[in-house]
Amino acid sequence: MEFSSKLLEKAVNEMSQLPGIGKRTALRLVLHLLKQPQEQTQYLSQALTTMREDIKHCTSCNNISDYDLCEICSNTNRNHQIICVVEDIRDVMAIENTGQFKGIYHVLGGKISPIDGVGPSQLHINPLIEKVKQGGVREIIFALSSTMEGDTTNFYIYKQIMDYPVELSTIARGISVGDELEYADEVTLGRSILQRVPFEKSMVKN
Amino acid sequence: MEFSSKLLEKAVNEMSQLPGIGKRTALRLVLHLLKQPQEQTQYLSQALTTMREDIKHCTSCNNISDYDLCEICSNTNRNHQIICVVEDIRDVMAIENTGQFKGIYHVLGGKISPIDGVGPSQLHINPLIEKVKQGGVREIIFALSSTMEGDTTNFYIYKQIMDYPVELSTIARGISVGDELEYADEVTLGRSILQRVPFEKSMVKN
Repeated sequence: MEFSSKLLEKAVNEMSQLPGIGKRTALRLVLHLLKQPQEQTQYLSQALTTMREDIKHCTSCNNISDYDLCEICSNTNRNHQIICVVEDIRDVMAIENTGQFKGIYHVLGGKISPIDGVGPSQLHINPLIEKVKQGGVREIIFALSSTMEGDTTNFYIYKQIMDYPVELSTIARGISVGDELEYADEVTLGRSILQRVPFEKSMVKN
Repeated sequence: MEFSSKLLEKAVNEMSQLPGIGKRTALRLVLHLLKQPQEQTQYLSQALTTMREDIKHCTSCNNISDYDLCEICSNTNRNHQIICVVEDIRDVMAIENTGQFKGIYHVLGGKISPIDGVGPSQLHINPLIEKVKQGGVREIIFALSSTMEGDTTNFYIYKQIMDYPVELSTIARGISVGDELEYADEVTLGRSILQRVPFEKSMVKN
């Protein structure tokens, strides 16, 4: 791609570093900014820089926060004995949106994935194990995605805390609500039969 | 979407102002920046701000440039008597990539589109007409997209300069090289038959 301006080229190159943004998309975005008032670019740049510099990770759960302790961890109305282990802050947002969980979270920041060079030490696993060792944790819910990496991470944590008196569970895998059976994959359908639930329990309202 | 951090929320909101970037994509991009070294965000912000503040439009053709006169307009090896009228800097880049055009460009900055509130006065049309009136322009090639708005814009310019001794042409419309006839739309196929070219001319090498 030949650019008529070095400034434009630099902006496009930086923009195309973002995941899923190719050179063409980056050019479209940058040209859009050029058509908008100068303030919009300023606001965007400032918001990104301030966020990157000032954002904190909750010292307890590793969630993204403006304070040392995030709003969920500092909320005394929540059950601090139940910890839901998630990969990412997006998963916290997704579970919070359901309104079904009143415990607290623990954000690992990723999954164990040797192929990507991510080992347990790069993740926020040890603080979780420390919490369990110190006691006061009744249940840990694994809510990682159901992939090889997710299962490996679950198993790694399980091995570290299996000797402590803590209940371990994983979120239910099965057919999505509203989905048709014939389109479900075999593994999911098989699991949803093996792990069937009593009918009365299935009538729980969302 | 509930955010655990105001800083994060602000960054996501600013990011999702960009065209084609929804809240979810914006969140993905911003979380990516959080995982990268702080410098990456700085470089991105700086590149965008500097570009927005310092970039110039060529005083002759309205192309984006780092100087008052863009590289194409200041190139004396190019034929300044042939002007290719395009909508956007991306079109300049696309035509330059073909290596088939040795004239200069004129970037309108859009098309006449009453439905979007874009009239001739918002576009860079008058400087083109002035150029024609001053003489020295032999041919104008319309290379706008073949839509209602593109045709309207072509026609508007045509009406303004029809009395001046300048040759007017449009880029050829027809079946794309490598395309199969059966999948072409009727209008394009019809036009490619009406505007057929002598066989010897069709053997021009790209």
